Amino acid sequence: MRPAPDLSLYLVTDTALSRPRPVADVVRAAVAGGATAVQVRDKDASRRDLLALTRAVQAAVAHRPDVPVVVNDAVDVALIAGADGVHVGQDDLPAAEVRRLLGADALLGLSVESVEHLAAALRLPAGTVDVVGLSPVWATPTKPDAGPGLGLDGVRELAARARAGGLRAVAIGGIDSGRAAAVAATGVDGICVVSEICTAADPEAAARRLRAAFDRAGAR
Amino acid sequence: MRPAPDLSLYLVTDTALSRPRPVADVVRAAVAGGATAVQVRDKDASRRDLLALTRAVQAAVAHRPDVPVVVNDAVDVALIAGADGVHVGQDDLPAAEVRRLLGADALLGLSVESVEHLAAALRLPAGTVDVVGLSPVWATPTKPDAGPGLGLDGVRELAARARAGGLRAVAIGGIDSGRAAAVAATGVDGICVVSEICTAADPEAAARRLRAAFDRAGAR
Repeated sequence: MRPAPDLSLYLVTDTALSRPRPVADVVRAAVAGGATAVQVRDKDASRRDLLALTRAVQAAVAHRPDVPVVVNDAVDVALIAGADGVHVGQDDLPAAEVRRLLGADALLGLSVESVEHLAAALRLPAGTVDVVGLSPVWATPTKPDAGPGLGLDGVRELAARARAGGLRAVAIGGIDSGRAAAVAATGVDGICVVSEICTAADPEAAARRLRAAFDRAGAR
Repeated sequence: MRPAPDLSLYLVTDTALSRPRPVADVVRAAVAGGATAVQVRDKDASRRDLLALTRAVQAAVAHRPDVPVVVNDAVDVALIAGADGVHVGQDDLPAAEVRRLLGADALLGLSVESVEHLAAALRLPAGTVDVVGLSPVWATPTKPDAGPGLGLDGVRELAARARAGGLRAVAIGGIDSGRAAAVAATGVDGICVVSEICTAADPEAAARRLRAAFDRAGAR
């Protein structure tokens, strides 16, 4: 069995928001501050550039084998880079097919935006999906294609259903350090953060603040 | 060793130009008319939709195992669908990495737009790339990001260099039945066609016309 990584503070990268810094620098700082997992996301990059970005992020956290590096959407990039996993959305390749390509040891995440999405994820064979990304908690400009917000009540309900079905759950969308404790209290295994870390003058301090807020809520 | 497929008339699909017909219908007709290979290309489709499209095309030509179905760019889609190969551009995943993922039997194509691109392809280990797509012969609205046209002289020169280096060569960009014979006379192994087939009221007749023009030039 693969070990379950700590998803408490799950950084999702944004190349534009990280500028002028390289994404890898932001990732390194965030991990030093307490980020426990990283998802490399860049919907605008070519696959070639996304591969280079993924490798740069892997190199930035090579000293922390406990921190998984997951690739958003691009299964081929993840396979070539030897990433720890893939996160797919509802429009990306079907989770069952992705699991077959990745093998049993990879971390496979799936975005769910509704009770129906979650029910479909729970109908997949055990071991297909490891973690669902409950999305979005609140509407957010970094993912304009996401639906209306689930809100804290929606997240609480979906997280409970996911856990009952043997899946872990992280929440994403509009989470900052002011809201992190409230999200943690819904019972999720972690919070995904984009903006507050990628735009921070000091991403390490931002990660430390977010991590403290999450940990204080005692959700782990 | 894998058999070298006939690339004489290589249809590259365009979902928008095929409308209102499903791409698979156009492909079936084109193959009936003499298309010898198919590349599934849809830069606007999600990977999930591209997978469905690839499977529909595979089903449409399942009675013709001699006609390879190749996926443009999306290595993960090709792997899941069990496609016959992948075609990558200069901004897509690096050919050497793609070959490693696909295994030795897949057909791997690479777009080259210059002598420098071709020289780089020829420096790859033997067996990495099978065929280069010389692109574009003429500037074309179906691929606005392609560079200025190579012209017939450029295609002739690149095709000769490719052959000397053990690679097959097909030409793409602005080729219609009026120009097919001239392109065939450059010594390429085949012509790639998008618009004349995908926009045709009768794609089977269009393919027959293109194939006749190519074959008459005796380039095979």
